Amino acid sequence: MTAGADAALVALAERLADAARPIVMGYFESGVTAEAKADDSPVTAADRQAESAMRAILAAECPDHGILGEEHGRHNTDAEYVWVLDPIDGTVGFATGKPLFGTLIALCRNGAPILGIIDAPAVNERWIGVKGQPTTHNGAAVATRRCAELKDAWLYATTPDMFEGASAHAFQRLSDLIRRRAFGADCYAYGLLASGRVDLVVEADLQPYDYCALVPVIEGAGGVITDWSGGALTLSSDGRVCAAGDRALHPAALDCLAD
Amino acid sequence: MTAGADAALVALAERLADAARPIVMGYFESGVTAEAKADDSPVTAADRQAESAMRAILAAECPDHGILGEEHGRHNTDAEYVWVLDPIDGTVGFATGKPLFGTLIALCRNGAPILGIIDAPAVNERWIGVKGQPTTHNGAAVATRRCAELKDAWLYATTPDMFEGASAHAFQRLSDLIRRRAFGADCYAYGLLASGRVDLVVEADLQPYDYCALVPVIEGAGGVITDWSGGALTLSSDGRVCAAGDRALHPAALDCLAD
Repeated sequence: MTAGADAALVALAERLADAARPIVMGYFESGVTAEAKADDSPVTAADRQAESAMRAILAAECPDHGILGEEHGRHNTDAEYVWVLDPIDGTVGFATGKPLFGTLIALCRNGAPILGIIDAPAVNERWIGVKGQPTTHNGAAVATRRCAELKDAWLYATTPDMFEGASAHAFQRLSDLIRRRAFGADCYAYGLLASGRVDLVVEADLQPYDYCALVPVIEGAGGVITDWSGGALTLSSDGRVCAAGDRALHPAALDCLAD
Repeated sequence: MTAGADAALVALAERLADAARPIVMGYFESGVTAEAKADDSPVTAADRQAESAMRAILAAECPDHGILGEEHGRHNTDAEYVWVLDPIDGTVGFATGKPLFGTLIALCRNGAPILGIIDAPAVNERWIGVKGQPTTHNGAAVATRRCAELKDAWLYATTPDMFEGASAHAFQRLSDLIRRRAFGADCYAYGLLASGRVDLVVEADLQPYDYCALVPVIEGAGGVITDWSGGALTLSSDGRVCAAGDRALHPAALDCLAD
């Protein structure tokens, strides 16, 4: 991309987030969100409507781009540019009134994320990451913090219940070596890592629309985010994610997670 | 208390919350909060300064009342009226930039909580509970929702790591019977219960300054909150708390938690 194309694509991504916000917040504030992800639940309705609004903008502005969305599936995902959309990441939080859910918007080029937005509308916060540029949080550049050793690291995961079998054992091994673990921040945890407030986020069982947007945000803030084998996160990764604020901390976490 | 005394004490409690807010938020927004609760950490400094500000108001306004605070200990706690203060509940969240921590302010009369505030300054939300009156959230009355059966219930706890031994087994038994569990909302979870967004909050290892403020908030919204044996929460409870939005759900949860 040229610098000019960058700016236009970022502006387009922000338009998507802006379009999702009133839909998502309308459902969130209505309080009728007890059912998470049942087929005709309010959460699913909010998800679908927000994704439809974003898809309509993309259809008008870049009809040759592909789209992979949580609710409405795949469209032209062999294209050079593919938008990856999760209208509500953190549906349990959303369904229970916890304001840390987010809208995740990524643009992948040839399968690799080059632009990502974590938008947390209930707390009016937005992280934007663009490959090769500093990540911003509500417009201000942010950076991860230094923490080179596991014994000093603070870790987030959405819930221990996301790990099963060997992954659960690996997560417990890592938990035993770090300073402190905490749960329940969903995608907001990756924003906190980009902003230098925590050192590790380790999760499993994620989908491409859960992790693609995180990559440019974390990398543009000075951190590193890969799968548990150290491989780059792409549209075809296995859904296990390890993000570290300090590049020296990341291999230590991967070593611990390895069987 | 007469109605007039009620109003004056509520106004005083709100003054305490208002005094704590800028101190707590100043430290939170500064970002220098990596160390949680080390003796000279920024978290402890924020805790101490906020509690000192609240104590100064109480010393001026009601010098005959007792005070039990997390940071500065006991003062005249045999008095008829005792204020119970936790300047920052959810220090791990606070230390990592997660905006769901809260200031908890309770007034106990003869050991029983009669007034409670959950103030969540980073999201500008405040629940106020007064014995015998409807609980409010940012000034509007709130009510718990109906959910009479465990199989339909959504549950919050701060972290599974707060349960040990028999308590951990009991919490797992309950987890196996409910619809869904989630973590990481700290005192905000009790606000969500009062506002009818979740059905159960079950925790252990709490101190009086962690739970006293919750009692009037939950009860005034139509819920019930006790220790795990069904006993009223007082200054001398054992720190295991079970809150339910639906009065019919509460005994089912207690049965499950019982050894």
